[in-house]
Amino acid sequence: MKDNLKNYELIRKRINAFSFSSFLAYWDSETEAPLECFSNRSKQIGILNELAYNLKTSKETISIINILYKNRHKLNQQLNHEICEFKRDLLTMKKIPINEYIAYQELLAYSFNIWLKAKKENNFLFFLPTLEKIVNYNKQFIKYQETKSLKGYDVLLNRYVNGFKIKDYDKLFLELKETLVPFIYEVSKQKLPYNDNFLNFQYSKEKQKQFINYLHSVLQFDTSRGLTKESEHPFTISFGPSDVRYSNHFYEDNLCSGIFAALHELGHALYEQQVSLDLEDTLSWGGGSMALHESQSLFYEQMIGRSKAFWNQHFPVLKSIFKKEFKGVTIKDFYHHINTVKPSLIRIEADELTYPIHIMIRYDIEKALFANQITVKDLPIIWKEKIKEYLNIDVPSDKEGILQDMHWAGGMFGYFPTYALGAAYAAQIFNTMNKEFNVYSSLKNKNTEEINYWLKINLHQYGSTKDPKSLFKHVAKENFNPKYYVKYLKNKYTKIYNSKN
Amino acid sequence: MKDNLKNYELIRKRINAFSFSSFLAYWDSETEAPLECFSNRSKQIGILNELAYNLKTSKETISIINILYKNRHKLNQQLNHEICEFKRDLLTMKKIPINEYIAYQELLAYSFNIWLKAKKENNFLFFLPTLEKIVNYNKQFIKYQETKSLKGYDVLLNRYVNGFKIKDYDKLFLELKETLVPFIYEVSKQKLPYNDNFLNFQYSKEKQKQFINYLHSVLQFDTSRGLTKESEHPFTISFGPSDVRYSNHFYEDNLCSGIFAALHELGHALYEQQVSLDLEDTLSWGGGSMALHESQSLFYEQMIGRSKAFWNQHFPVLKSIFKKEFKGVTIKDFYHHINTVKPSLIRIEADELTYPIHIMIRYDIEKALFANQITVKDLPIIWKEKIKEYLNIDVPSDKEGILQDMHWAGGMFGYFPTYALGAAYAAQIFNTMNKEFNVYSSLKNKNTEEINYWLKINLHQYGSTKDPKSLFKHVAKENFNPKYYVKYLKNKYTKIYNSKN
Repeated sequence: MKDNLKNYELIRKRINAFSFSSFLAYWDSETEAPLECFSNRSKQIGILNELAYNLKTSKETISIINILYKNRHKLNQQLNHEICEFKRDLLTMKKIPINEYIAYQELLAYSFNIWLKAKKENNFLFFLPTLEKIVNYNKQFIKYQETKSLKGYDVLLNRYVNGFKIKDYDKLFLELKETLVPFIYEVSKQKLPYNDNFLNFQYSKEKQKQFINYLHSVLQFDTSRGLTKESEHPFTISFGPSDVRYSNHFYEDNLCSGIFAALHELGHALYEQQVSLDLEDTLSWGGGSMALHESQSLFYEQMIGRSKAFWNQHFPVLKSIFKKEFKGVTIKDFYHHINTVKPSLIRIEADELTYPIHIMIRYDIEKALFANQITVKDLPIIWKEKIKEYLNIDVPSDKEGILQDMHWAGGMFGYFPTYALGAAYAAQIFNTMNKEFNVYSSLKNKNTEEINYWLKINLHQYGSTKDPKSLFKHVAKENFNPKYYVKYLKNKYTKIYNSKN
Repeated sequence: MKDNLKNYELIRKRINAFSFSSFLAYWDSETEAPLECFSNRSKQIGILNELAYNLKTSKETISIINILYKNRHKLNQQLNHEICEFKRDLLTMKKIPINEYIAYQELLAYSFNIWLKAKKENNFLFFLPTLEKIVNYNKQFIKYQETKSLKGYDVLLNRYVNGFKIKDYDKLFLELKETLVPFIYEVSKQKLPYNDNFLNFQYSKEKQKQFINYLHSVLQFDTSRGLTKESEHPFTISFGPSDVRYSNHFYEDNLCSGIFAALHELGHALYEQQVSLDLEDTLSWGGGSMALHESQSLFYEQMIGRSKAFWNQHFPVLKSIFKKEFKGVTIKDFYHHINTVKPSLIRIEADELTYPIHIMIRYDIEKALFANQITVKDLPIIWKEKIKEYLNIDVPSDKEGILQDMHWAGGMFGYFPTYALGAAYAAQIFNTMNKEFNVYSSLKNKNTEEINYWLKINLHQYGSTKDPKSLFKHVAKENFNPKYYVKYLKNKYTKIYNSKN
């Protein structure tokens, strides 16, 4: 047993080293790698993935995991959970033929660039053959993984939130559809009046970055253990709590885009930075689940970042950086602007209220795609129909439609629904937090230290040492209930739209 | 044989994948990684190096290499050479105990940051224990590698230029010392008069970068297969000809520093970009030797970058970017400034004529260190003595002295002499090139296309498919002779200093 543990620790270190190299290649690919390198680079990444795969699925590893699994009750909770997860992963991996797995990894290593080019050139057909290959692999993946209790699209959903299936998501989206859609309809008929002069200016990237740096100090992002760069699509990546990075984009004609993308990614980044440093050598140094992760990004972006209490503190700073642009603009103007409900095309720029509708559309499409009710080449048309149906707007181009998100280029089918679940989680966690201290009052401290600390103690520090459902229960102090989310949204937007003048 | 070749190709691909991950980690460490990540990161890099080491020295690899080595005459020239080099590497590696090798790699993974901190804080004592460990490893390395014909410091020199020993370098440096030192003494007594008003300005980083981007088009650096970033010490790294990167630094009070560092690194980068793409999957896609590499960087930085012909074309562009700063400054003023001979403290900012003296000092110190005539803790004092002796100036601080270069923090003892050899190579190659076309006249094309092409055909395309000595002979079309270097320098500086008014 002692030897097995020692060998397991060595395997774990090697797995972490391979993750490090593959995450670093990903970070580099998305933020700076030159265009022509990808054909060679995809081969290198394929080989590193193959070596990592060989290591994880070697006879020696399997034998060690099996022995530790049998004796798991003698292990501490963290190790016990880690071994169970490893065992589950092995069962998944064993079902995929190695050559298909490697070919898929190589595909993913260049698919991002195909998508990026297609998006830039508004050319879905350029992306189509690659996307078809990715979808086909995922259909094949489903076939390999199906069990009596887990079939079709559920297999993909289960990858990101263990235990959450179509029937669970259907319930969540039904709740949102029945309550929110009519509410959005009512609200978006009204106009929220405000001085929107500041929208006519160009905001230099340099000054935007200056304000984002200020937000780092507000949210207490530790730049000795992290950094930020630019990329097409903002994302966060962690190499362990001592090195957490996020990327952002800046549009000179859209100041808010960079600010709210930063607040979103900083939510992810704080989660990763606040994981206990003791977990750095284990396999449990990442967040608890994708939905928990999105709950943190959406909590900081929406509940905190779009609140009056937050901007009471920080609007004066924004105004001091952009003096000319914000001349005569009050905090009420800005607050109304960032909370205006207006059906729109781009998910990551959607307001808080219509945001879940964007998720619902992607969920509907994925569900239909993996039930073989639609094909990949139909996607642009179906996208346009759905946007018309739920948001009543026309999609003028694929780059503002089906091509806007990078997720599918990365094979992340089943991921989008975690955003809606994450938002619902966030609202419920917010409710629990407010029972222990007045969250908005705490923002008067000029930074989010009190909030960060509460989240660290109740959630972040644990990394992925617990199963996601019990981890959520631990932080929310009750079972999941989507009603908090609907209640939070209705309260907030009723208040804004009723006191609009 | 066929199977062995196939297996060899797989091993080679894996080695390239490990190199890719380790080079990428290095690039990231030097250009952006956050300070607190290095303790964890050094472990990961240590593990990846261990895995690469295990792969290279596995029984399977050794057996394949031995078979291919025996049958090497049946292989094509490229493969034959590659197998011989692999065999030589194996012999070297076999002599180092794996635990010592791994511990050293881990040490190197954080030593850079120790050095950086020591340099920033001008605190040699902070770096001392790390440097002592690095020197001790290299002394131990020598003991492991010594043979009848290769002893002491020669072991280290041989790592970078196979076949070049103390006796060869002594000859080169003696030639420089006897002819150049008195010449420098004569020249530097004189004052080269020029309008140096432009030295009193601050040069914004943004505008400096604008000019460097212009130089990319002049030197035809292909940014679809490369990129540039900032770091403490400029360097170039290649992941194969489709991804070549270099870093630079910018000082607002020293415009020329960034320009000549860029020209130097672009020389390295062009070499790597012009290696035949067919070699990308082999182990031969890098430059032919360190001295050959330095010959290319110094050729572009000195022979081209400090020539009148070059600035005739590009000074007007520099002037158009910095209108105010260069008001009333003529090309002759600028040309005199960049060719003023003035003994100075910092190697990478030294003029072309005193540059080899900086190398000689480092060579003398390394030679004495590995002959156990001096110890690591004596280095700051010895450094000051040598600078006084050869250049007659006082060293005011260790950061402008012993701590200025990163090489020793990376364990690169034996590397510095390749700079002097490289410069001598460059002058000889320049002489040969001029027999085939008028190099300076070709600069009237506004770019270096004709020069690049000649170097591609005669040197770059071959990568490291030939042994360095015959590769040099191939490009220079005769044996190495240091007299060309001395002749080039004396001609150039006699002309400048004689026509000074």
